[in-house]
Amino acid sequence: MKIVVVGGVAGGAGVAARARRIDETAEIVMFERGEHLSFSNCCLPFALSGIVDKSDKLVLMTPEGFWEKYRIKALVKHEVTEILPDKKEVKVKNLLTGECFTESYDKLALAPGANAILPASIKGIDRENVFVLKNVSDIKKIEVFVSEKKVKKISVVGGGFIGLEVAENFRAAGKEVSLVEGLSRVLKPLDEEMAQFLHKELLDNGIQLYLGKTVSEIGEGEVVLSSGERLPAEAVIMAIGVSPETKLAKDCGIELGQTGGILVNYNYQTNYPDIYAVGDAIELTNRLSHDKSRLPLAGPAQRQARAAADHMFGETHSNRGVIGSSCLHLFKLNVANTGLNEKDCKEHGYHYDFAYTLSTDKVGLMPDAHPLFFKLIFEKPTGRILGAQAVGKGSADKRIDVIAAMISMNATLEDLKELELCYSPHYSTARDVVNQAALVALNLLHGKFRQVPVYKVRELVESKACIIDVREEKEFARGHLIHAVNIPMSQFRERLSEIPRDVPVYLHCRSSQRSYNVICALQKLGYTNLYNISGSFLGISFYEYYRDKTEGRKPIVTEYNFN
Amino acid sequence: MKIVVVGGVAGGAGVAARARRIDETAEIVMFERGEHLSFSNCCLPFALSGIVDKSDKLVLMTPEGFWEKYRIKALVKHEVTEILPDKKEVKVKNLLTGECFTESYDKLALAPGANAILPASIKGIDRENVFVLKNVSDIKKIEVFVSEKKVKKISVVGGGFIGLEVAENFRAAGKEVSLVEGLSRVLKPLDEEMAQFLHKELLDNGIQLYLGKTVSEIGEGEVVLSSGERLPAEAVIMAIGVSPETKLAKDCGIELGQTGGILVNYNYQTNYPDIYAVGDAIELTNRLSHDKSRLPLAGPAQRQARAAADHMFGETHSNRGVIGSSCLHLFKLNVANTGLNEKDCKEHGYHYDFAYTLSTDKVGLMPDAHPLFFKLIFEKPTGRILGAQAVGKGSADKRIDVIAAMISMNATLEDLKELELCYSPHYSTARDVVNQAALVALNLLHGKFRQVPVYKVRELVESKACIIDVREEKEFARGHLIHAVNIPMSQFRERLSEIPRDVPVYLHCRSSQRSYNVICALQKLGYTNLYNISGSFLGISFYEYYRDKTEGRKPIVTEYNFN
Repeated sequence: MKIVVVGGVAGGAGVAARARRIDETAEIVMFERGEHLSFSNCCLPFALSGIVDKSDKLVLMTPEGFWEKYRIKALVKHEVTEILPDKKEVKVKNLLTGECFTESYDKLALAPGANAILPASIKGIDRENVFVLKNVSDIKKIEVFVSEKKVKKISVVGGGFIGLEVAENFRAAGKEVSLVEGLSRVLKPLDEEMAQFLHKELLDNGIQLYLGKTVSEIGEGEVVLSSGERLPAEAVIMAIGVSPETKLAKDCGIELGQTGGILVNYNYQTNYPDIYAVGDAIELTNRLSHDKSRLPLAGPAQRQARAAADHMFGETHSNRGVIGSSCLHLFKLNVANTGLNEKDCKEHGYHYDFAYTLSTDKVGLMPDAHPLFFKLIFEKPTGRILGAQAVGKGSADKRIDVIAAMISMNATLEDLKELELCYSPHYSTARDVVNQAALVALNLLHGKFRQVPVYKVRELVESKACIIDVREEKEFARGHLIHAVNIPMSQFRERLSEIPRDVPVYLHCRSSQRSYNVICALQKLGYTNLYNISGSFLGISFYEYYRDKTEGRKPIVTEYNFN
Repeated sequence: MKIVVVGGVAGGAGVAARARRIDETAEIVMFERGEHLSFSNCCLPFALSGIVDKSDKLVLMTPEGFWEKYRIKALVKHEVTEILPDKKEVKVKNLLTGECFTESYDKLALAPGANAILPASIKGIDRENVFVLKNVSDIKKIEVFVSEKKVKKISVVGGGFIGLEVAENFRAAGKEVSLVEGLSRVLKPLDEEMAQFLHKELLDNGIQLYLGKTVSEIGEGEVVLSSGERLPAEAVIMAIGVSPETKLAKDCGIELGQTGGILVNYNYQTNYPDIYAVGDAIELTNRLSHDKSRLPLAGPAQRQARAAADHMFGETHSNRGVIGSSCLHLFKLNVANTGLNEKDCKEHGYHYDFAYTLSTDKVGLMPDAHPLFFKLIFEKPTGRILGAQAVGKGSADKRIDVIAAMISMNATLEDLKELELCYSPHYSTARDVVNQAALVALNLLHGKFRQVPVYKVRELVESKACIIDVREEKEFARGHLIHAVNIPMSQFRERLSEIPRDVPVYLHCRSSQRSYNVICALQKLGYTNLYNISGSFLGISFYEYYRDKTEGRKPIVTEYNFN
């Protein structure tokens, strides 16, 4: 058996190493167009701040190492220029010498990856101060440029995972950083109200954020936005997204899917059964939406590589599609998500609802306890869990991993409510964030109360709806919604006459727990038109803050409160 | 509806608060024998070090607060002395005034908790310097005694969760601490090889550990062990376990289960349908072993309280039994477990096997990456996940929560292997600890390789078995097994003649990944008698260290290596 692998990073190196474990006698050849094999892509941004201290360390394996340990012939600076499926051969060009040669294969694996998008429509996109961040060579180029030109002002274009990580790490390195994002919010997998935490975090950490703006021109020391604004920028990092590298595949007749990624079957075979494809270049099926998608993430790439290599030797893996789990560190925040968000649910016609909770991430008495903002999306009326998003200073990743596990096992809210997680005050609360979210969601599903989302509150305030704040008087004094009436939980039973029965009444407290209690009591007392404001005052403060501060909007609160 | 609750802490307070949410008009009365309601039991040990800074803060709610917010009449220092099920009444004694009275109920909830065991067989067990840690008053007594007597030397008896937390927190407060445990290892839910990490951590942090020892006498300033050893101890904390508080229940004819806990049905009703019981005093069914057990943990108590209160109003919850998830912080270690351990599996006749891995908890390039020791136990031949244990400096709790979710959903290794968790170098690796453990476990299940556990290695070394260490020469030079032959992974193909075919060959490296690769290759080359040493050199070092150091055993390694 002779296996040829195109691409020597995550997916490609994974196929090669796995093939060797299966068959010690197979001949395995791997071609990588770039300078480096098997580097840690996901660590690239951290080299900018020095968290990862040397860019050389990012390279996990050398060609010599691959040969010594795995007897894999790995060639860098070698580009596969053509695939000849009928002859089962590839044409290869040595980029250092210009020499071309032909290599035969029994099985071919394509792991060409994806390229950073550089829109030709942006004037000056080909300037020497414009960079992308796809490999170790890019990091080295940036390092040299920043140090030689004594760069202080940097603009990052794109507010996705890479853009945010690049912005954070340049800021940590003491640079003045601006971030430009075409959408009205960063990090697309998050819903609007969850993204607001990130906007505040960026603002608090001195990053100039330009939302809903695009770049029209990159000039000498500046970036010009379509709006006409000019941002000082001695260097520009483009991180608006990636497009799958499919030219090689397409040229030899390999079919592409509707998203432009390489079409593969259950076993990661292309339309040529001896040619497999894995990684960022392929099209996947979303397990929840049944939609076609691309998911340029390292975890799925690793699983694909193993499955493809095994299938070359006759073993089939299960392929359940992807749910899309990801996480991000942003200054003091941990951010994570899995499954579908509200936008996805709407697009796919799901009948859904969501719980939005802010439990503390560990027992409140512990010195480092913080609220964790958690959004749990479920299907109606089945209660099946569809997705979740978490933001806070505590373990967002832990909660999202638990939800990812539950989604993978087709769990319902009832399952999540009963979930018996490990608890000590150092790590969580006896009723963990995820259990609490399941309880709130079940109450919604069972029709036990109704809620309005935090993004509807401005409208309520502006229309002078009846809003009751059930926090105690001292809390109310430290900031409250304009027009809100303060009827503390400890007094509402004596002040029922102040709570109208003929109009909708919207209740909140700090975190929605007390207001939920009051709603239960009032409903039992015959009130029928009550709504809990999900997220309550803490959620409202975080949701409103960034736009109030940057757009000069009139706040709907007398004072924000983030504690 | 009139509800009487006996016990005002976790379970009892939970029943009362939930009942109020369901029915604003119900009359709810709660009696607590002690001084405080609804305190944070699980935080008690942290008050000893000042992590939780004031013992008063441990009290979450006052009787006034219960009345103001919930209209729950909560009475402290009131002991329910008798239950009259036929009359549906309880007799109550006011412990401050001595006054006795009768209270009627429609529904009664018992949440009496459990008492710390104080064996009468220990001479001096009733001395004034002997303490337990069950409530806020205990903490205050200890604080006063330690400060007035200027206590420096403390002995903790019992190496379970509470004993370990007490020992850690007294040590953090600068005390000289000894810990006495009757078993050969601390923390019973862990298997032997996992507990060794804790032993080393205790030793490294200056705690004098006495394993397999019991206390025969507590004297003036000392503890005398059955072995005759005398430990200086001005104060002694007894934490050898708890026994359910069942006298009140038993006296009125409530049936107890085989474990001595109160017998309840699916809805937490006792044999008197109007009397419910929840919390540490009741007997539960283990969902995996189908065994009866008691589980004095806060998470399950909360779920029981909600279910019992709901059932009083006609709503039934699902009751799936318990799996037992717990976690512990011990100096720099995080420790967590869920489901069955090896001992449980043996006792219940499970046909099982386990993977023991030590993946890094985040990408190795990150400055705070550490190995996470992970044991995953599964059923054969079904591959169903039965339990897991994790120890390390990283997020053990996260991985165990994921496994708890998978166990709850009856997941198999195949499900765990495919699990799509969120990944960023800050939090994990592209193939997370739990995915990696599933892959190793599947290889074992599929018969792709065989392993010997780390606790068999001493026997192999002593019998001069053929052990091959495939780490590179430099690593071997920094410490290796006595008698082991060093054939680095980068050389084995040229040195096949040194690897015998006629005897069992045991291979290892640092973490078992390289040795697994070599085993795959050798098997393909016709070797049939190969074993991977699970845990490899790092696991061996941790496993052997504590006993070598404390028992004066001859080490089986030339030097330990913990990196």
